[in-house]
Amino acid sequence: MRIAILEAQKVIGLVSPNPAVGAVLVKNKKIIGVGHTQPPGKNHAEIEAIQKVGLKAKGADLYVTLEPCCHIGRTGPCADAIIKAGIKKVFIGMKDPNPKVNGGGMKQLKKQGIMVEIISSQSKLAREIRLLNQPFIKAITTGLPYVIMKAAISLDGKIATRSGNSQWITGSEARTDARIERSLCDAVLVGAGTVAADDPELASQGIFKNKKLLRVIIDGQLSSDLNKKVFRDNNVLVACTDSASTIRCRAYDQAGINYVAFGKKIVDIKKFLKYLASQEIRSVYVEGGASVHGAFHDAALKDHRLIDRVIFYIAPKIIGGKNSLSSVGGKGVIELNEVLKLKRVKMENCGADFKCSGFLNFY
Amino acid sequence: MRIAILEAQKVIGLVSPNPAVGAVLVKNKKIIGVGHTQPPGKNHAEIEAIQKVGLKAKGADLYVTLEPCCHIGRTGPCADAIIKAGIKKVFIGMKDPNPKVNGGGMKQLKKQGIMVEIISSQSKLAREIRLLNQPFIKAITTGLPYVIMKAAISLDGKIATRSGNSQWITGSEARTDARIERSLCDAVLVGAGTVAADDPELASQGIFKNKKLLRVIIDGQLSSDLNKKVFRDNNVLVACTDSASTIRCRAYDQAGINYVAFGKKIVDIKKFLKYLASQEIRSVYVEGGASVHGAFHDAALKDHRLIDRVIFYIAPKIIGGKNSLSSVGGKGVIELNEVLKLKRVKMENCGADFKCSGFLNFY
Repeated sequence: MRIAILEAQKVIGLVSPNPAVGAVLVKNKKIIGVGHTQPPGKNHAEIEAIQKVGLKAKGADLYVTLEPCCHIGRTGPCADAIIKAGIKKVFIGMKDPNPKVNGGGMKQLKKQGIMVEIISSQSKLAREIRLLNQPFIKAITTGLPYVIMKAAISLDGKIATRSGNSQWITGSEARTDARIERSLCDAVLVGAGTVAADDPELASQGIFKNKKLLRVIIDGQLSSDLNKKVFRDNNVLVACTDSASTIRCRAYDQAGINYVAFGKKIVDIKKFLKYLASQEIRSVYVEGGASVHGAFHDAALKDHRLIDRVIFYIAPKIIGGKNSLSSVGGKGVIELNEVLKLKRVKMENCGADFKCSGFLNFY
Repeated sequence: MRIAILEAQKVIGLVSPNPAVGAVLVKNKKIIGVGHTQPPGKNHAEIEAIQKVGLKAKGADLYVTLEPCCHIGRTGPCADAIIKAGIKKVFIGMKDPNPKVNGGGMKQLKKQGIMVEIISSQSKLAREIRLLNQPFIKAITTGLPYVIMKAAISLDGKIATRSGNSQWITGSEARTDARIERSLCDAVLVGAGTVAADDPELASQGIFKNKKLLRVIIDGQLSSDLNKKVFRDNNVLVACTDSASTIRCRAYDQAGINYVAFGKKIVDIKKFLKYLASQEIRSVYVEGGASVHGAFHDAALKDHRLIDRVIFYIAPKIIGGKNSLSSVGGKGVIELNEVLKLKRVKMENCGADFKCSGFLNFY
């Protein structure tokens, strides 16, 4: 199963909306084939492994991180292929949370006399396997995408100087790391203020360079200048409100920029996240600025599922200033006992800076 | 010299305004005696070691972290005692930066035919030895006390919720550690806002429990309620301005609380620090809140010697809120290239929290 996990890890962030799955075929105590999920519409991990070894699959054991599917989606059901290949026993990392499967794959295999074993959901290994696909599990079970809140701050919690200067607070290692974390998601989100101030590209990076990352802008009034870099192609969605003027709507229509209203005057974060999930966006990387982080944080205080993970890059320097923007705006908590506490916190070195990350939810 | 450093470390924070010094006597390759600085008015480290071994000191080598003094302060000069004891050779960690000594001790020893060797000031060991007494070195050479800025913040840089709730952001380990760091200093400083909101005791702790830590309040108008805990005895100094009313001055006079004005309307941080140094306060632990940290930070942007070390305890939680106080107020920097960067940064676990500390200056 360790090898299957490693296989799955190879494609995290590359096969969404599908889960990252790894499969290993073992015969006579020897690994005869491995496979991982291919891009949407292509083979699932099990089929990939089976096709690689051909007839040799007969009588082998299959280790797979996720329950084989029994429904026809973009590809045929994997359970059928496993039966046809003559697999003897199947070890499963976790039940498929997809209501269309959810035990159905196992049932089908057992019916055909194949031995099926599933890892105890309480074990450490099961946790590790669930960690491979938090966005998939959350989206499938809750109808909400997985939300990561990211910020780059000074030690005193500022994201810009009082004059609005924010490039760059952290060093190049932290910025590269942040872009890789971004690239692992399906969508990246910023507010209109950040578009106006920083004109960011919001591109993917490294092995994800060709990934089509959806750029999402929170901009109630459709106020953003359409010449900004985020509008360089139409793989962008603007979340606005009913208060956006007809003139601005027309300008966006003419530019072919997609926008949807979620609320009368303020973007309703939860409604908007549900919409993203309905578009098969499994994960959103929220990069701020202060108002956007504040809006998400205030929403998460009401429904804790609206922020799942937090990544803060901390530069060991002081910016200071009563009027300098700090990382999370909005209303915030009133009493300290309402505070959202990170779990499984990691503090790592990242060049001259630090990367502090932790979870608010685990699915 | 390693043993001498360990001896000196035992009394860091306990012998101010004197430096923490360690001494070791070696004869026939064996340690025959050790000593460290005693409280003010009592023996220096060298005398302590020599008195312990008595006549056996004759012909021994002496390792001492700081150049022996040659002036009469609260105690007689150590150089004389070394000569009288018949020490053969003296190894010195660093020159005494006190202008009354500054090489004079070494000269006196050499004149009497004693071999003297001093560690290269460029070596790593010399740096370690200087670290033992940063407050002493700074105060003696600049006429300013050593300044530590301390804050306890949430991951998003807040020191209180929007309702002003700040007790407690960090856990008990971090709070204990912060009190030990405080106890190592000669004075602890907060603003009138913190006195009003938190009514802190500002006590010393642990082995420093009986230490007389000077409590300093920055309170331009002498507005603080004299029933607050900081005024429980008169080991307190209020830094005010000329704008404090006669009525308030009289109230403070009657209560026997010491106050000094440093400026017309705003406390001049540098003037005030110079005054503290003149009172033999070698180190100040600045605990905030936001306005006080802002005032020190703004002052340090003009003269970088006004903050020497920064200690931030970071709780992995989000408070949020545009109107929640963040750690460093004041004006702050305008451009990022003016920013004060910490050097030799350490990030440590401290219970469920983190302790990030670093230096702005090294003396």
